[in-house]
Amino acid sequence: MKFTTYLRNGAPRLALVDGKDLIDLNDANADTPADLRLALKAGTDLQAAGRAALKEGKRQALASAKLAPLVPEPGKIICLGLNYYDHAKEGGREKPEYPWFFFRAASSLVADGEAGWAPQVSTKFDYEAELAVVIGKTVPRHTKEADALQYVFGYSCFNDMSVRDYQKRTPQWTIGKNFDRTGGFGPHLVTADELAPGATGLRIRSLLNGQVMQDANTSDMIFSTAETIALLADVLTLEPGDVIVMGTPAGVGQARTPPVWMKAGDTIEIDIEKVGTLRNPIANEGQ
Amino acid sequence: MKFTTYLRNGAPRLALVDGKDLIDLNDANADTPADLRLALKAGTDLQAAGRAALKEGKRQALASAKLAPLVPEPGKIICLGLNYYDHAKEGGREKPEYPWFFFRAASSLVADGEAGWAPQVSTKFDYEAELAVVIGKTVPRHTKEADALQYVFGYSCFNDMSVRDYQKRTPQWTIGKNFDRTGGFGPHLVTADELAPGATGLRIRSLLNGQVMQDANTSDMIFSTAETIALLADVLTLEPGDVIVMGTPAGVGQARTPPVWMKAGDTIEIDIEKVGTLRNPIANEGQ
Repeated sequence: MKFTTYLRNGAPRLALVDGKDLIDLNDANADTPADLRLALKAGTDLQAAGRAALKEGKRQALASAKLAPLVPEPGKIICLGLNYYDHAKEGGREKPEYPWFFFRAASSLVADGEAGWAPQVSTKFDYEAELAVVIGKTVPRHTKEADALQYVFGYSCFNDMSVRDYQKRTPQWTIGKNFDRTGGFGPHLVTADELAPGATGLRIRSLLNGQVMQDANTSDMIFSTAETIALLADVLTLEPGDVIVMGTPAGVGQARTPPVWMKAGDTIEIDIEKVGTLRNPIANEGQ
Repeated sequence: MKFTTYLRNGAPRLALVDGKDLIDLNDANADTPADLRLALKAGTDLQAAGRAALKEGKRQALASAKLAPLVPEPGKIICLGLNYYDHAKEGGREKPEYPWFFFRAASSLVADGEAGWAPQVSTKFDYEAELAVVIGKTVPRHTKEADALQYVFGYSCFNDMSVRDYQKRTPQWTIGKNFDRTGGFGPHLVTADELAPGATGLRIRSLLNGQVMQDANTSDMIFSTAETIALLADVLTLEPGDVIVMGTPAGVGQARTPPVWMKAGDTIEIDIEKVGTLRNPIANEGQ
């Protein structure tokens, strides 16, 4: 089953995606919160809500909808650095023994179809194709890897757009990962039951102006979805609507000779097999 | 003027603090949102709401209230590392040329009076006395340092409790700064008009079981409140209720010989002149 978040009168609304249609879940049933995070927090059975909406809900064309970031305001957006061997290697790094975690804030998110913003203060603007994991239920602290996947609601695409000079101004990458409108997230979520456990075995690519820049498989991730959840559960409480962004494979712009940087007028796409295609035009900041 | 956030039936409520009393602002005027972030987002004139509540509001004893983190769910919690010369030096670091920014999530926060949690997976649990800045109004992108302080609503105390081995497992500090219940925040906010611009010139201390461990002055910060806001405004949109945590001075437990680690039964206090005293007992995780 697929879900998305679209805008109605400027406010994000949770919807089921069925083929070329979307069906507003709160319209179909007023008990279903209009926000994915709140619906998950409330323990809403979204698969049941989706099935009911399929039968009776009012349809509208997905193509004419303006989307919002899939979870508009996650409690946490936890990102992994260097989670593919080949990308760690292209950056001159060894295989990490523990994930390089950093956080994004909701203010950095940008929806499918919206412009990603090339910063005013830097030209070193890069793309990163990543698998996004959306937590569906609170993960008990110290959950083991074998039990971890039951807490995943589904998967989506993420573009962890990075401002490389800011990322490297200090050893803390966070600031280079948190420019406004640099975290592409969507276009929709595919529920976990439709994919292999942990969303392994999926081709993951980025395409800049139609040219393939990254082309790998989610099975090449060093830390799997389940292991990552277990490692995080030793530290903190993963809550419904939290997002884990699973790191990027080789082929980023900064590792190329000469480097490739995104600029206004470009289009960047993240395509994950069976999950979807996230597309963002690039515009100068503020436009 | 002082504000705090306390719990009523488990839900956080914004209140004015007047001497030994608190006055619930939403009770005093139903137009005032019961959450500090939402009140600021709505553009509520909290000074006016506070003055009205002082005259007519129902008082209750502050001492018998159970507090919540001052902003229970900030959009962003942006922390600075190494923002005092002496602390950078004790960690063997040079003066940084740009702040070492990392983020905390709301799930790491703990209120004044609540137990900070000594992690199950580590004994290297340290304290860090810090000044917290609460943003009152959206900061326009590329705001200059000279214009930055008008967007500050007020200041509070923060204890950036750190799990040092996790902080150093990779170059990214984030995970060691985000254990559940390790970000002490409160007990109240003092509005900016009651302090020197940028809250400079204030003695800042931490006391472990009554013994002074850190003792410095906020004037020793390398990056001032205004400069930090200006640097952030080049990158992202600071929004009402966002929190900036301004870094810690020398004297942390890990830099001592032998190192000092917090454990269950300890009490840690962060005391900032004219701002307040944040007190957290330490308990084993989950207790």
